[in-house]
Amino acid sequence: MISNNELKYIQSFAHKKHWAEETVYIIEGPKLLEEALKANCAIEKIYATSAWLDQQDLLGVPVETVDEVMLARMSQLNTPNQVIALVNKQQAVLAPFDKTFTLLLDGIQDPGNLGTIIRTADWFGIQQIIVTSDTASTYNPKVIQSTMGSCFRVMVEVADLETVLANNKLPVLGALLTGETVYKTPLPAIGFMLIGNESKGIRENLKQFITNPIAIPKFGGAESLNAAVATGILLSHWRNR
Amino acid sequence: MISNNELKYIQSFAHKKHWAEETVYIIEGPKLLEEALKANCAIEKIYATSAWLDQQDLLGVPVETVDEVMLARMSQLNTPNQVIALVNKQQAVLAPFDKTFTLLLDGIQDPGNLGTIIRTADWFGIQQIIVTSDTASTYNPKVIQSTMGSCFRVMVEVADLETVLANNKLPVLGALLTGETVYKTPLPAIGFMLIGNESKGIRENLKQFITNPIAIPKFGGAESLNAAVATGILLSHWRNR
Repeated sequence: MISNNELKYIQSFAHKKHWAEETVYIIEGPKLLEEALKANCAIEKIYATSAWLDQQDLLGVPVETVDEVMLARMSQLNTPNQVIALVNKQQAVLAPFDKTFTLLLDGIQDPGNLGTIIRTADWFGIQQIIVTSDTASTYNPKVIQSTMGSCFRVMVEVADLETVLANNKLPVLGALLTGETVYKTPLPAIGFMLIGNESKGIRENLKQFITNPIAIPKFGGAESLNAAVATGILLSHWRNR
Repeated sequence: MISNNELKYIQSFAHKKHWAEETVYIIEGPKLLEEALKANCAIEKIYATSAWLDQQDLLGVPVETVDEVMLARMSQLNTPNQVIALVNKQQAVLAPFDKTFTLLLDGIQDPGNLGTIIRTADWFGIQQIIVTSDTASTYNPKVIQSTMGSCFRVMVEVADLETVLANNKLPVLGALLTGETVYKTPLPAIGFMLIGNESKGIRENLKQFITNPIAIPKFGGAESLNAAVATGILLSHWRNR
């Protein structure tokens, strides 16, 4: 039986304040649960329908059976989906920047875009992302949902990008209108790729660090590409370097 | 002064039924209006704040000044943005399939994905898209908004894809897990690119028409890519063929 306080606590994750303050975050649906269990995430508690629980083999995870009505009250989805869980946040342990390729996000605003970028980075084997503090929160349930589970595999850390770039003199790929076409220019295996805000692009104070300005050639009338689509295209060409 | 009937009519575009039935569709915000005017769309009526209207030079378009309160009542956006307009639907006039490259969408469900795909197609100079009848409606305001104006440049027609493919024996690119890597395989300049549903992929009855099965190489843990991101990656490599 769920107490009123526990219900209120779960519901509180709809609010931005709780994404930063709490040591746990919320995930929903069988697909995300499956990915979280596969990734050995530290799950604090699972609330699920008996139909879902009957098919699971959950050792050592506190579980509470809830009915559809309670699940709907707890859920932030339009269509609640069998299970909700609280997952412990994990401290990101980043690889040294000079041994890997790191994605840097400069103020991505839309939660769907951020989630899709994390998912796309995961597809292309990028294991770490640094985001500015004004990027959407990684613990926003909308971000979590749109990563489709990649949030359990890709480390995302908030940091001041100017400091990171000033302290690590490595190749920095950045999409600029004046950049070299990504189809022809050589792309470094190690370093950073800098992705700018959806409407404002890369901030002025960061542009100075770009060593490899690149551009996706345009053939039609659109003024710009969606940030997640652009990231996918750049990472695909980077992998095909 | 807006009559109650007129207000109700504008509000009715929140409902799916009206996207198909009406001869007009609704667009919102200065950016989309600017793009619609630039593309010489037949605009039926503009409802806008005087602040916006004062900066425009609108000849021959019926205009109604509304205050912020009325605009908010008419709007479907969380943050109403100065102007709403009714635009006449245009009959798509497609180029012959054997003279161009046509995108085929097989059941794209998410309005944001569809809008982003239209925007991405526009960027890469694709001028026509055929969609199945179970794809999201092009006249869904969420689709229109996320095209960022590309809906005025790219023609989208609903048709039975099996019929289209059976009647036009042209190269058909289709993303399949078993496909050739898009990094290496030759891609035809003329023909079709087939994009499948977000979770189910390309339907069985259409797979038989794929002449060039392709795949985006995967390097990490994500099970799949977002449909719009995948479309962008494929189109970028197609342009770089």
